[in-house]
Amino acid sequence: MLLETIRGPEDLKKLSRPDMETLGAEIRQELIHTVSRNGGHLASNLGVVELTLALHRVFDFPRDRIVFDVGHQSYVHKMITGRYRQFATLRQHQGISGFPRRAESPYDCFETGHASTSISAALGMARARDYRGENHQCIAFVGDGALTGGLCYEALNDAGNSGTRMIVILNDNEMSIAPNVGALSIRLTNLRVSSEWQSAKSAMHKFRSIPVVGKPVYRIAHAGKTLMKTALVKGDSIGFFETLGFEYFGPIDGHNLEGLEKTLEKAKNFDGPCVIHVKTKKGYGYDKAEERPEIFHGTPPFLVETGDRTELPDCPSSGHVMATTLMEMADQDPRIVAITAAMPLGTGLDHFAEKYPKRLIDVGIAEEHATTMAAGLAAGGMRPYFAVYATFFQRCYDQMIHDVAMQDLPVVFLLDRSGIGGEDGKTHHGLFDFAETLPVPGMTVLAPCDARELKRMLEWTQGEHGPVAIRYAKAGNDLPEKKDTPFRPGKWEVLRKGKDLTILAAGTMVRQALQVAARLQKKGLEAAVVNCSSIRPLDRDLLRKNAAVPLFTLEEHMKTGGFGEYVAMCCLEMNQPAPAEIFAVDDIFPLHGSHSLLMKDVGLDPETICNRILRKLERSRKA
Amino acid sequence: MLLETIRGPEDLKKLSRPDMETLGAEIRQELIHTVSRNGGHLASNLGVVELTLALHRVFDFPRDRIVFDVGHQSYVHKMITGRYRQFATLRQHQGISGFPRRAESPYDCFETGHASTSISAALGMARARDYRGENHQCIAFVGDGALTGGLCYEALNDAGNSGTRMIVILNDNEMSIAPNVGALSIRLTNLRVSSEWQSAKSAMHKFRSIPVVGKPVYRIAHAGKTLMKTALVKGDSIGFFETLGFEYFGPIDGHNLEGLEKTLEKAKNFDGPCVIHVKTKKGYGYDKAEERPEIFHGTPPFLVETGDRTELPDCPSSGHVMATTLMEMADQDPRIVAITAAMPLGTGLDHFAEKYPKRLIDVGIAEEHATTMAAGLAAGGMRPYFAVYATFFQRCYDQMIHDVAMQDLPVVFLLDRSGIGGEDGKTHHGLFDFAETLPVPGMTVLAPCDARELKRMLEWTQGEHGPVAIRYAKAGNDLPEKKDTPFRPGKWEVLRKGKDLTILAAGTMVRQALQVAARLQKKGLEAAVVNCSSIRPLDRDLLRKNAAVPLFTLEEHMKTGGFGEYVAMCCLEMNQPAPAEIFAVDDIFPLHGSHSLLMKDVGLDPETICNRILRKLERSRKA
Repeated sequence: MLLETIRGPEDLKKLSRPDMETLGAEIRQELIHTVSRNGGHLASNLGVVELTLALHRVFDFPRDRIVFDVGHQSYVHKMITGRYRQFATLRQHQGISGFPRRAESPYDCFETGHASTSISAALGMARARDYRGENHQCIAFVGDGALTGGLCYEALNDAGNSGTRMIVILNDNEMSIAPNVGALSIRLTNLRVSSEWQSAKSAMHKFRSIPVVGKPVYRIAHAGKTLMKTALVKGDSIGFFETLGFEYFGPIDGHNLEGLEKTLEKAKNFDGPCVIHVKTKKGYGYDKAEERPEIFHGTPPFLVETGDRTELPDCPSSGHVMATTLMEMADQDPRIVAITAAMPLGTGLDHFAEKYPKRLIDVGIAEEHATTMAAGLAAGGMRPYFAVYATFFQRCYDQMIHDVAMQDLPVVFLLDRSGIGGEDGKTHHGLFDFAETLPVPGMTVLAPCDARELKRMLEWTQGEHGPVAIRYAKAGNDLPEKKDTPFRPGKWEVLRKGKDLTILAAGTMVRQALQVAARLQKKGLEAAVVNCSSIRPLDRDLLRKNAAVPLFTLEEHMKTGGFGEYVAMCCLEMNQPAPAEIFAVDDIFPLHGSHSLLMKDVGLDPETICNRILRKLERSRKA
Repeated sequence: MLLETIRGPEDLKKLSRPDMETLGAEIRQELIHTVSRNGGHLASNLGVVELTLALHRVFDFPRDRIVFDVGHQSYVHKMITGRYRQFATLRQHQGISGFPRRAESPYDCFETGHASTSISAALGMARARDYRGENHQCIAFVGDGALTGGLCYEALNDAGNSGTRMIVILNDNEMSIAPNVGALSIRLTNLRVSSEWQSAKSAMHKFRSIPVVGKPVYRIAHAGKTLMKTALVKGDSIGFFETLGFEYFGPIDGHNLEGLEKTLEKAKNFDGPCVIHVKTKKGYGYDKAEERPEIFHGTPPFLVETGDRTELPDCPSSGHVMATTLMEMADQDPRIVAITAAMPLGTGLDHFAEKYPKRLIDVGIAEEHATTMAAGLAAGGMRPYFAVYATFFQRCYDQMIHDVAMQDLPVVFLLDRSGIGGEDGKTHHGLFDFAETLPVPGMTVLAPCDARELKRMLEWTQGEHGPVAIRYAKAGNDLPEKKDTPFRPGKWEVLRKGKDLTILAAGTMVRQALQVAARLQKKGLEAAVVNCSSIRPLDRDLLRKNAAVPLFTLEEHMKTGGFGEYVAMCCLEMNQPAPAEIFAVDDIFPLHGSHSLLMKDVGLDPETICNRILRKLERSRKA
C-alpha cells in the first residue's frame, strides 16, 4: 500500500502521476473505512482529496501555512502529514482529532472548528510573516458555505485593502452551473433549488418513517449556499473578489490533480492577495455520499455497502421534539417563525419546515445576523425562535445583549448541543451559555431535564414578552421520574426526597443526579434530587425552605459563571449555607471522545461525583 | 421660528420649498447650539439634515419604519418628531437620548448604538410585515463606515437572496470622488489617503502640544472607510449591490432636497430590496465641522465661534497612556503590533502610530476579524495588542474564546471605556467584560486602578504567553495613594489599613473605595482598602490571611458574573466568609447622563455605598 509509505509531504513529491492516482484511491478507501466505523465528516473530505494532495505537492508545509476553515475537511491533510497510522483513532478519546490541532502536528498551524475564521487567521499569519521579514505563503482553505459568514467578508476587505500576499482557496462544492452566466440563469437555478426544497418536503414524511436512513434522497437548500451562489454567479465570481482587491484564479476542476498543481504553482509566488476558485464534488468517489452529501456531511457509523447507519438512536433528538412542538404551536399562533443559521437538519427545524416551509428562515452561516434579524422580527410583532448550537451561540453574544435584551424583545434562543459535545471535541462543546445569559438583565434562562419538559417550556414561552434562552442536549429522552406538568419559571421540582443532602441539578445532569442518589443510598445516605430547570429565575422558595443541607450542584457547564455559582450567590444573599460543592467543568477545555469518557475526564460521572460527595461529608463530619 | 411649529412629520409635508430651506437652516443652528453646550455627535447630524427631512416628507412614519445604524445621526429625526422642545436636554440625565430610544417615541422603532445592525433589523421588520400582510416600508439608514461590518454583509446577502421589499439608505459621507472611475482612480485616491495620513502624523506632535484643540487639521484615514471606498469605487457601487441582489438608485446629492425626494418616491414602492446611495458631507453647514469632521464626530462642549473645546480634560486619557507605553515597548520588541477596529483616535492608538504607523493595523469596523486576525498574528510569532471599547468587545466573544483562548495565544485585549460610560448611554457602557473573560480557561483578567498601573501591567504582558484582558476607564488619572511598583499577577496592594472591615475594589472603584473609607472613618470605623487589580488570578493569600472581615467588594460591572462573585466563590472554596455585600450594577441597563449621576442611579456613589455598609454592619451587630 502506497499510503503507508507516505511519512510526510516530501514523499508525495517523489510520486509519479499514476502513483498519485493510486494514492488518491487508497486515501478515499481509508476515509470511507475509518469514518464508517468512527463516524465523522465524510463527504467534505472525499471532495478534497486531489486538492489537498496538490497543495502538499506544490507548497512547502509546515514552512508555508494552511488554515482549514471549520477544519472538518482536514482528514486527508492529516493522513499525509505523518498521522496515517493513528488515523484509525480518529475522533476517539485520546485519538487524533477530527479538526486541526496544534498539539498533534506542526502541520496544523491554527485550530479551527467554528466557521469563517480562516481568512482572518491566514491574514494575521501573513502580516506576521511580513513584519518578520519571512517569505512563506499563508493559505486559507474555505468552503463556499463558510464564505457567507460576515467574518470572511471583513477579512477579505482587510486583506484586499492592505494588499497582503496570501491565498484563499475557495472550495466550491455546491455550484453546479458555470459562472459568468448572468441574471437569467441564476433565476433558473434558484427555481431549481426551491423546487428541490419543495419535493424534499413532501418526501420527508415518508423518509422519516423509515428507521434506517432510507433511500429517498433529499436535500435542504441551505440558504447560505444559495446566497454565495447568487453572489458568485450573478455578479460573476471574478468581479466579486476583484472588487474586494483580490486577484482571481479559476474556476478550476478540483478533481484534476495536474490542473490544480499548475494553478497553485502560478498563485504560489503571486505578490498580493489572491483567490483560487476550485470546484469540487462533495462525496466524490463514494456513490452513497455523492447522492446524499448532507447525510454524509457529518455521519455516525454506517455500512459501507448500503450507506445505512449501523446504530439507531433510541429516541428522537431534542431538536426533533422542539421542532414538532413549535409546529403545533404555529398551528395556533401565526406570529411564530423559526430561524436557523444554515442548520435546518442539525437543529431539527427541517421537521418544522415540513408543515411551514415559509415560516422557517435560513440565513446561512450568519448567527450574528440571525439574532439581530430576530430582534427586528420581534419588534415587528412576530415571535421568532432561533435554534442554534450552544457553541455557535457564542457568535451572537453582542447581538443577544444589544439588540434583543436591551429592548426586552420576545426572542427565544434554543440552544441545542449544550454541555459536553463528544467526538467533535474542543471547539464544539456548549459550556459558556449560562455565563453568557445569566448576567443579562431581563433574560429568562432555562434548562429542561428531558424532552417533555422542553416541550412544556416552549409552550410556556408563548405567553412571555421578553427574551428567553433554553439550553438542551442533543438526545431527547424522557425521564421517567419527571412528572409531565406545565412549566412554571422559578419553580423547581423535587424528583426524589432525601433528608441527608440535596443535589440541585441543571438540565442533562438531573439524570446523573438520580444515579448519584442511588449510589449514595447504597452507602446509607438519603439524597434529595431537585430538577432545577428554571435557572433564571431560581426557585428561591425551595432554596429557603425545603432544601436539606448540605447542597451540591451539578451542571454541564464551566464552573465560573455557571449554575452552581448562581445558586451560591442566591444563598449568600438569603443568608443561607451555600453549596458545599459545585460540580462543573473546572477551568479546562475538554477534548474529544465519547460523551461518557469526557464526563469522566472532567469529573462529572456518577461515580466521581458520588465519591467526592462522600469525601466532603466525611470531612465536614470530622470538622 | 419655523422649527417650533413642527409637531410631527405631517407638518413638514405642508411646507413650501423655501420654507423647507429655512427649516433646514434652523435645524443646523439648533444642532450646533445644543451640541456645543451638551456635547454629542455633530458632524454626522449636520450631514443628514436634508436627507432626514426628505425621508420624513416622502414616507409615512411611524407606519413606515426606519432604523438608524449606530443611531448617533438621529438628532434631526428627533427634532422633527415631536422632541424639539426637549432637545436642549440631549444626552443629559433624564433628558432625551443621543440614540434612538423606543420609550421616547413611536418614531424610534428600533434601538441602536453598536454599528452595522440596521440592515438585519430592518429586514426582520420587513419580514414581519410580509408575514402579517401589512405593506409599509422598512428602511435601514447606514453609513459607509458601518457597512464594513460583516453583519451588514450577512444581512445584505440574506435580503438580496430573499428578495424582501426594503430600502437601504447608504449615507456615504466619505467618498469624495465619483463612482465608476475604475482601478486607476482608486489607486490615486488611496495614494491621497495615505499621504494625508503621513502628513497628519508629522503634524501630530505639534497638535498634541496645543492645549485647546488647535487649528492644524488632521484626519486619520479610517481603514474601514477606505475599504468601503475600494469596494464601491473599484467594483463600482452598482455592481457591488446588484451582485448581492439589490436594486441600486444613485448616487445622489444628499444636500439637494428636491432630488432626494424624487429618488425616495421612486424607491418607496419598489417591490424588492433596494439601496439608495446618497452622498453627503459630514459637518455640512458649519465650517469648523466640515474642516475637521473627525473632531466633530463625537465632541465635548465647544465654542461655536472657534470650534475650540470649552473644557479641557485634567489628565491624559488611559488610551493615551496605553499608546505611549506600547510605543516605548515597541522600541525594544519588534514583535509588538497594535490593532484597532476603526478607532485610532478613540483608543489613543494614534499616539502609537506617530512613531510606528506601520505597526498599527486598522481593520475597519470589524471587531470579530480584528480578534481572529490577532490570533493569526500571535500564531505567527507577533505580540498583538487589540485596543477596543469594552462595549464593542462584546462583538468578539466567540473569537476571543475559540480563536485566542483555546489556542492559548498571547493576544492582549485592551478594554477601554469599561464601566459606566456616561452620556452615550445604554448601548455604550462596558458592564459585561468580567463575565465574558473570567470563565474562559487560561485568560488573565486585569483592572488597573490608575494610569501608572496600566503602564506597569502593559510592561508585564511582554513576558506572558497566554491571553490577557485589561479593562480600564477613559480617564487616565494617577492615584496618589498607589505606589508605582512593577505589576505582579495574583498580588493585591493594601492602600489603606483598617481593622473593622475590608473594601476590595476593582479598577476605577479603588478611588471610590478610598472616599468610602474616609466617610466611614468619620463614623468611627477603620476600613482597609485593597486595590484588587489582578482579577484573575485573585490574591488568595491576601484573602486567606490578611483581610479583616467583613469584606465588601466594589466594581463597575454587572453583579452577576462579576468581580465580587468571583471573590465570593474563592472565599467559599477556601472555607472563609464571603463578602457581606457586593456593590455592582444590579441587573439593569443604566441609561445616559453624567458618570456621577449614573453612579448614583445604580447605587455606586460613595455616599450610598457608605450608608449601605453602615446598615449592613448595624444589622449584623444586632443579629
